[in-house]
Amino acid sequence: MTSATSSPSAWSPSATSLLVTGTIGIDTVETPSARAERVLGGSAAYFAAAASRLGPVRLVGVVGDDWPAHHRTILEGLPGVDLRGLEMRAGGKTFAWGGKYLANMNERETLFTELGVVADAPPKVPTAFHDSGLVFLGNTHPAVQIGLLEQVPNRTLAVADTMDLWINIAHDELVHLLSKVDGIVLNDSEAMHLTGIRNAVTAGRRILGYGPKFAVVKKGEHGAVLVHRDGVAVVPAFPAEEDMVIDPTGAGDTFAGGFMAHLARTGRTDLETLQAALSWGTVMASFTISSFSLDAVARATAKDLDERYRRFAAVARV
Amino acid sequence: MTSATSSPSAWSPSATSLLVTGTIGIDTVETPSARAERVLGGSAAYFAAAASRLGPVRLVGVVGDDWPAHHRTILEGLPGVDLRGLEMRAGGKTFAWGGKYLANMNERETLFTELGVVADAPPKVPTAFHDSGLVFLGNTHPAVQIGLLEQVPNRTLAVADTMDLWINIAHDELVHLLSKVDGIVLNDSEAMHLTGIRNAVTAGRRILGYGPKFAVVKKGEHGAVLVHRDGVAVVPAFPAEEDMVIDPTGAGDTFAGGFMAHLARTGRTDLETLQAALSWGTVMASFTISSFSLDAVARATAKDLDERYRRFAAVARV
Repeated sequence: MTSATSSPSAWSPSATSLLVTGTIGIDTVETPSARAERVLGGSAAYFAAAASRLGPVRLVGVVGDDWPAHHRTILEGLPGVDLRGLEMRAGGKTFAWGGKYLANMNERETLFTELGVVADAPPKVPTAFHDSGLVFLGNTHPAVQIGLLEQVPNRTLAVADTMDLWINIAHDELVHLLSKVDGIVLNDSEAMHLTGIRNAVTAGRRILGYGPKFAVVKKGEHGAVLVHRDGVAVVPAFPAEEDMVIDPTGAGDTFAGGFMAHLARTGRTDLETLQAALSWGTVMASFTISSFSLDAVARATAKDLDERYRRFAAVARV
Repeated sequence: MTSATSSPSAWSPSATSLLVTGTIGIDTVETPSARAERVLGGSAAYFAAAASRLGPVRLVGVVGDDWPAHHRTILEGLPGVDLRGLEMRAGGKTFAWGGKYLANMNERETLFTELGVVADAPPKVPTAFHDSGLVFLGNTHPAVQIGLLEQVPNRTLAVADTMDLWINIAHDELVHLLSKVDGIVLNDSEAMHLTGIRNAVTAGRRILGYGPKFAVVKKGEHGAVLVHRDGVAVVPAFPAEEDMVIDPTGAGDTFAGGFMAHLARTGRTDLETLQAALSWGTVMASFTISSFSLDAVARATAKDLDERYRRFAAVARV
């Protein structure tokens, strides 16, 4: 097994297994024109749906015993999603989230957040997953992320997501997490919040000072910037027409899923591969926004994905 | 001579001459860390400085007799800028603008605008320029833009810039202008203002309904979207670090200058060429932001431009 500091070329085929930790949620989403009630959501669900389109993915998460059976059916129907790390906690309530998008579909209000089992002890990484090579730590308290990370000692690459809340209330733990991961994925507003720097490139550069090799600064409809020790890459979002945008929920998580899964399947983490991975993240996000829940990502055929990738490469060619 | 509706392949070498109409201004710019007093500015000056790096450009504009001699020296020092259309109006005052950038360098306040000679009769297009092939109409009252356009009867492609003011107070004239030009360049906020549509792609598409073949929706630090009858293209901005951004003034005008000059030198206006032109616009804007006035664009060597282009193509490769 290779250590976390090995060079990309040291990867073994078995080290490319991909693990995601995060939430499985019950989402209720309102948009100006439609509403989806108690649909499958959560960062790990979105991530896994996207990642599974490119290769196998191991999911670690926890639900309550109120978890709808048809949500499990959806996840089980995704080829390549290994659910042995999905814990159903008796007597617990599944994480539930309600949000409402404003008319421009870029701003949203959170209507409610019911943490349920997510507020209790985090799930354990099952022994069968301890040898995972790539780890993506979905957004949660950074101390929990560190605890999950330590259960995957043979990882070659760990990437974490975070959010404003932890920058506010767990800043020191977040900085500690940053010293332990290889990459961080966060929104431009979060990067600014963490660093006090509005410029996405410079904010990303500052974050590298905390330890990671790279930072992916997501800008929603404006794409993303990758700031890496070895250089910079920038990718626009897929130029979606207004009527293509049904529900942006999960776009960032599926971006991360496509991004990480491309690294997993290539077994490489050099700058050039990370740059290509940005495009796969973008392609996955472009499907996600075009439906409620993870329907569109789950439904897209390999041909659909390839066509969207080619179309993206054509419209974004410089 | 070919007409405005000819196919790109019908272009003759002489039809690729490029004309720009717009302001020559005296700019005073404050940023959080520096200040530039009465430097050369204005849309036509910025445009011409950028365009001249790729080929000849004909400038039509007007200044007062207070125009600083060293401003003329700067323009005369730009190889390829034909100043026969620059009128110096006796007794008139040169357009002057003062602005202040806020700490984030993306928002600015206008401190003063002294229209001077720009408020009087527009300059004439000299006879020597009547055969111009490509025309860029810098931002001014759309009725004035139409008057200028009619002085270039043999154009093969006309592109106009506009701004919020004309959407507010000259909407009908602007719509009339849109029926006469082949392309429009405007900011995302202006595209939303004109169409009521926030999505840049859909707003651009709606604008095509007024007549033009394409719309370039500029998003500042987030790049630009080209919406064309034949398809869409998207380009990120050059990922500039914070300390590279000295003064964003003129970035949009030099973007347009690089964009149009690439069309002029290739003699083509198909979607693929327009897409490549977006990158040249981006490269020019990346120089503009790195100095006050048009110093950095004027100073960049051909080697600098090529290197920046290659670097942009590398960081934005999908």
